[in-house]
Amino acid sequence: MAGASGYAGGEILRLLLAHPQIEVGAVTAASSAGERLGGVHPHLVPLADRVIEDTSLETLAGHDVVFLALPHGHSARLAAQLPESVVVIDCGADFRLEDEQAWTDFYDTPYAGSWPYGMPELPGPAGTVQRERLTGERRIAVPGCYPTAVSLALAPGFAAGLLEGDDVVVVAASGTSGAGKGLKPHLLGSEVMGSMSPYGVGGVHRHTPEIEQNLSRAASETVTVSFTPTLAPMPRGILATCTARLRPGVDPAAVRAEWQQAYAAEPFVHLLPEGVWPATGSVIGSNHVQLQVAVDERLGRVVVVAAVDNLTKGTAGAAVQCANLALGLDETLGLPVAGVAP
Amino acid sequence: MAGASGYAGGEILRLLLAHPQIEVGAVTAASSAGERLGGVHPHLVPLADRVIEDTSLETLAGHDVVFLALPHGHSARLAAQLPESVVVIDCGADFRLEDEQAWTDFYDTPYAGSWPYGMPELPGPAGTVQRERLTGERRIAVPGCYPTAVSLALAPGFAAGLLEGDDVVVVAASGTSGAGKGLKPHLLGSEVMGSMSPYGVGGVHRHTPEIEQNLSRAASETVTVSFTPTLAPMPRGILATCTARLRPGVDPAAVRAEWQQAYAAEPFVHLLPEGVWPATGSVIGSNHVQLQVAVDERLGRVVVVAAVDNLTKGTAGAAVQCANLALGLDETLGLPVAGVAP
Amino acid sequence: MAGASGYAGGEILRLLLAHPQIEVGAVTAASSAGERLGGVHPHLVPLADRVIEDTSLETLAGHDVVFLALPHGHSARLAAQLPESVVVIDCGADFRLEDEQAWTDFYDTPYAGSWPYGMPELPGPAGTVQRERLTGERRIAVPGCYPTAVSLALAPGFAAGLLEGDDVVVVAASGTSGAGKGLKPHLLGSEVMGSMSPYGVGGVHRHTPEIEQNLSRAASETVTVSFTPTLAPMPRGILATCTARLRPGVDPAAVRAEWQQAYAAEPFVHLLPEGVWPATGSVIGSNHVQLQVAVDERLGRVVVVAAVDNLTKGTAGAAVQCANLALGLDETLGLPVAGVAP
Amino acid sequence: MAGASGYAGGEILRLLLAHPQIEVGAVTAASSAGERLGGVHPHLVPLADRVIEDTSLETLAGHDVVFLALPHGHSARLAAQLPESVVVIDCGADFRLEDEQAWTDFYDTPYAGSWPYGMPELPGPAGTVQRERLTGERRIAVPGCYPTAVSLALAPGFAAGLLEGDDVVVVAASGTSGAGKGLKPHLLGSEVMGSMSPYGVGGVHRHTPEIEQNLSRAASETVTVSFTPTLAPMPRGILATCTARLRPGVDPAAVRAEWQQAYAAEPFVHLLPEGVWPATGSVIGSNHVQLQVAVDERLGRVVVVAAVDNLTKGTAGAAVQCANLALGLDETLGLPVAGVAP
Repeated sequence: MAGASGYAGGEILRLLLAHPQIEVGAVTAASSAGERLGGVHPHLVPLADRVIEDTSLETLAGHDVVFLALPHGHSARLAAQLPESVVVIDCGADFRLEDEQAWTDFYDTPYAGSWPYGMPELPGPAGTVQRERLTGERRIAVPGCYPTAVSLALAPGFAAGLLEGDDVVVVAASGTSGAGKGLKPHLLGSEVMGSMSPYGVGGVHRHTPEIEQNLSRAASETVTVSFTPTLAPMPRGILATCTARLRPGVDPAAVRAEWQQAYAAEPFVHLLPEGVWPATGSVIGSNHVQLQVAVDERLGRVVVVAAVDNLTKGTAGAAVQCANLALGLDETLGLPVAGVAP
Repeated sequence: MAGASGYAGGEILRLLLAHPQIEVGAVTAASSAGERLGGVHPHLVPLADRVIEDTSLETLAGHDVVFLALPHGHSARLAAQLPESVVVIDCGADFRLEDEQAWTDFYDTPYAGSWPYGMPELPGPAGTVQRERLTGERRIAVPGCYPTAVSLALAPGFAAGLLEGDDVVVVAASGTSGAGKGLKPHLLGSEVMGSMSPYGVGGVHRHTPEIEQNLSRAASETVTVSFTPTLAPMPRGILATCTARLRPGVDPAAVRAEWQQAYAAEPFVHLLPEGVWPATGSVIGSNHVQLQVAVDERLGRVVVVAAVDNLTKGTAGAAVQCANLALGLDETLGLPVAGVAP
Repeated sequence: MAGASGYAGGEILRLLLAHPQIEVGAVTAASSAGERLGGVHPHLVPLADRVIEDTSLETLAGHDVVFLALPHGHSARLAAQLPESVVVIDCGADFRLEDEQAWTDFYDTPYAGSWPYGMPELPGPAGTVQRERLTGERRIAVPGCYPTAVSLALAPGFAAGLLEGDDVVVVAASGTSGAGKGLKPHLLGSEVMGSMSPYGVGGVHRHTPEIEQNLSRAASETVTVSFTPTLAPMPRGILATCTARLRPGVDPAAVRAEWQQAYAAEPFVHLLPEGVWPATGSVIGSNHVQLQVAVDERLGRVVVVAAVDNLTKGTAGAAVQCANLALGLDETLGLPVAGVAP
Repeated sequence: MAGASGYAGGEILRLLLAHPQIEVGAVTAASSAGERLGGVHPHLVPLADRVIEDTSLETLAGHDVVFLALPHGHSARLAAQLPESVVVIDCGADFRLEDEQAWTDFYDTPYAGSWPYGMPELPGPAGTVQRERLTGERRIAVPGCYPTAVSLALAPGFAAGLLEGDDVVVVAASGTSGAGKGLKPHLLGSEVMGSMSPYGVGGVHRHTPEIEQNLSRAASETVTVSFTPTLAPMPRGILATCTARLRPGVDPAAVRAEWQQAYAAEPFVHLLPEGVWPATGSVIGSNHVQLQVAVDERLGRVVVVAAVDNLTKGTAGAAVQCANLALGLDETLGLPVAGVAP
């Protein structure tokens, strides 16, 4: 587990502590190497006396699975040095984008290529899902938190050919853990509590190309997205409100069924009963995505709202889910099936 | 002041306590009549020992200004009985909509007509603003909280002919006081803290026709809006993220100037310096709206974000501002010019 | 599981969903009988389609373990009717107090007697712990949430004879879920967020006699406690600040060692490294208690602070822990070993 | 106004913006000098375009009143250089302690002496209050936030000779703004929200000697205090729970009257109606302290709970109140008489 000191790293460790088939091996980080893990993550009681090691090939050697939760741009170099037989699950953005141009438009490190995209439930055209590409893989790129919520929210509509690809608007609210542990003034509790604010407005957030990649794949044509993220006064959770215009001729009454069908067998994606809307509070700490779909018939638009825990299904839960698939285990092994509420 | 026991009523009283020209007269309510005001609003120290009276013509008689903060549908009957010479400022929805059909589509009480709409800063076509219609008026309908944020956010673009009227998407987050003081399970602190959820999805929220009325007036043509409100874990504040498609041929570089010009002289609407985005935490308790505008050139969309305190500029502050205009006082009298932060 | 609709009931179900040896049987409640469980507890995804049954002998029949999470005063009648062979774990106060007078001083229902007290780690005189009394028991009274935090915080000092019994002062802050799901105005999110307030001041809180019973047992003499609970703006968690005067002659340097020794082998009670103080955020969703001890040598007082999740170790986790002991299972089975943070 | 970039400085400016007799002059700070004030305090709209100047004798020259909101240890040097005729209101700790030993025990900068202590309402023996010492003064030391809450809570009992001075226990919860704007990991929103934690446990918090000084003065004998501060998940507010043992022979029924009498004429200290307890949410943004007193007759203890906004009455409001007294103005001028709630 490299990058253990951040929020994503802590969440991976939390999940692995309850995993029946994966044991926590070396726990490494950069600046906090040498510290007790209990000093960094006091909630991980069973690991409190572990000492954080330096992130290096030596400390990561000898593991069957390596989880990388590093700042963007750091995974590529490390991954290249790990043996091919080792399962590497990367929680960073480094290997998510298939289009080099999209990468260079949004990131300032060199393009490192792409790995199979770790969203097993992602609906594609003609009833395909992404799961098949992940089983037994040795390298998997874990999706970003916003793309998880937004892609699972809208992909069924695109895969079924219901939605226009040039009029998608998404506004999403994220808990502050999504912004990481960096010491920035606007992330202080005094500033955050009781306040909401947007950031990365105008199409400049790095998750935009990843969302578009996923929806375009589902649609088999180019989909563009107006995406505005906002910071909400809560530690965890993403609520993504996603709207798109229905294609002419689509029967509004038939819309919801596409989502129902797409996720009927999914263990972690739940379309709520009609009229019930998701709340992030219901998915905290769990690997679930909760969804609801409405059609605004007057305007010919679909509105889909998704709730997800940015650290669990949005990052660490997806990472464990991918590791399960890579290792040939039951995909749901060790993953929390209930949220912590209230 | 009728309807003193709710959050809007409490906020009106808070503002009037600091108003140099309006004195608090009778304080009335329905179910809490007979109680000490201090029991209902312990923050209003100077009024703590006032006894809440019943809302009736008798208790409201003899005042120069009457503020109504009643549940929707209750203002019409009461207002009809008050002398025409009295200034009546209605914080309910009863008199906001000019279109009877719009009323009956969204409300289940009979249509009561409309009063001058109390948003002095609302830009209309050809440089007009709503202010002129309010000075010296005896009856004013205070805007809804969401319509305040959204209309002020988008109207300059419509008034200047920059925006398409059929592709407007708004997602707004509101603090819980916007949902009132009713004892509903989903409003319990345990449910609300750490959680975000949508409501009124699919175009069914009652503020939709009011927003469309305002933007249509600004545009001099029909504007429709996909509006999704969400409940955020904070007591006060609205953050409205508003997007619309630019008309073909509009120069993106010229967009921001329209907002700058529209609000340059406004005391309560502030376009922030370029690149700085509003946060609800900066406007709590104040009568300000903070705005920022960005153009997503790739998609040809404008994104405007507005932050407002739903109880102050979103209700009670606007009510006092309207009363000032109605009474011929300085429009800004008694209104807080700074937010309470952090 | 009787009383499934409340917060304690929901938390028991959450824990049982991850328990390898206990399966959820009938799920019953009073007023919400007939509803989908998903409507009441949307976070319990795997049980969403379960229908809540009425709480009755019939619906509870045929189970090996029955968890009662009923309002105080309702357990006694029901428990009397359940077969003696069934393990009954009562989360209410009904059977916690051994002293009838203490019961009648604080409760208005008839005294129902007492059951073995379900705090396995409670230190008693001469190195005894409560655990021995619980193994294989058929009836166990789960401790209250505040008594859990306070008793575990102070009992080692009393058991070791270090503390005066007549000068104990405790001030504790609780998350709002401790106040339940009742629709009371002061529990609304708008009221709770950003605000702290005390309640039950002056020795009138019902947990006072339970705390005194535990500490008196540990001390083998009467201990009295000045206990003030406060409501904090968070959904879960108790932070109990507990102070007591050192007996004359006690060596301050020897104090901490008593706590260290008392809990060295405990799986769920953790004395943090010297100088590190507990935070409720570190124990959310877990069955842990985190403690720290300091001696204020100038005043001759010990200050112990305990953090616990009121719903997990403070109620439902303790209930499952007791059930494990009653059933002869590993005491820690199915209990979360890491908190959900941040 | 020196030290304008911190939370205390921002609050002083907020209050001065509404003050009818004091105008904001130079606004100075250290590290943020040269920045727009709007970048640091976006809630202070009317001052947004002011440029922060460097804190120096030159920039502070020519003002009738200078407010210092500097880190502890920085006021002494600056104050020594300001003309004696200028009113200097120091919000730091530098001049609060009359006992040099107390200073050197808790601070590491040299002792600078003491100034008149800026708590006008502080009851002393024989019905004296501190107000008399402040009128017309040129140098005033504004009290600390915790000492404000605790001293006003307990002083009437000590002044009236009701309380033992050697058995006082105080546990107080503070909003995060009390910890300032420093970029520390434990102050991040992700860490703070949903969590409570203690700090400075065991008598080591710097406000301890200030509290003891105030209570000792009230009692005319030495009072010692066990003081434990905790950090609560809210931006503002202090809730102080204060207990002390009644002297033998004190009639419990007579206790409350002492508080009633002490504060009957005070504009900013309010004893709530019997049985009503203060909440910090009721005093946010206002200069009020709300109090309640209970006697725990069984234990012979008094419990007093005080709620105050740490930034307003706890710092900046007290500073303005002191400036009013120093300038011979009405003591209440420009100070908010109602809290911002909910």
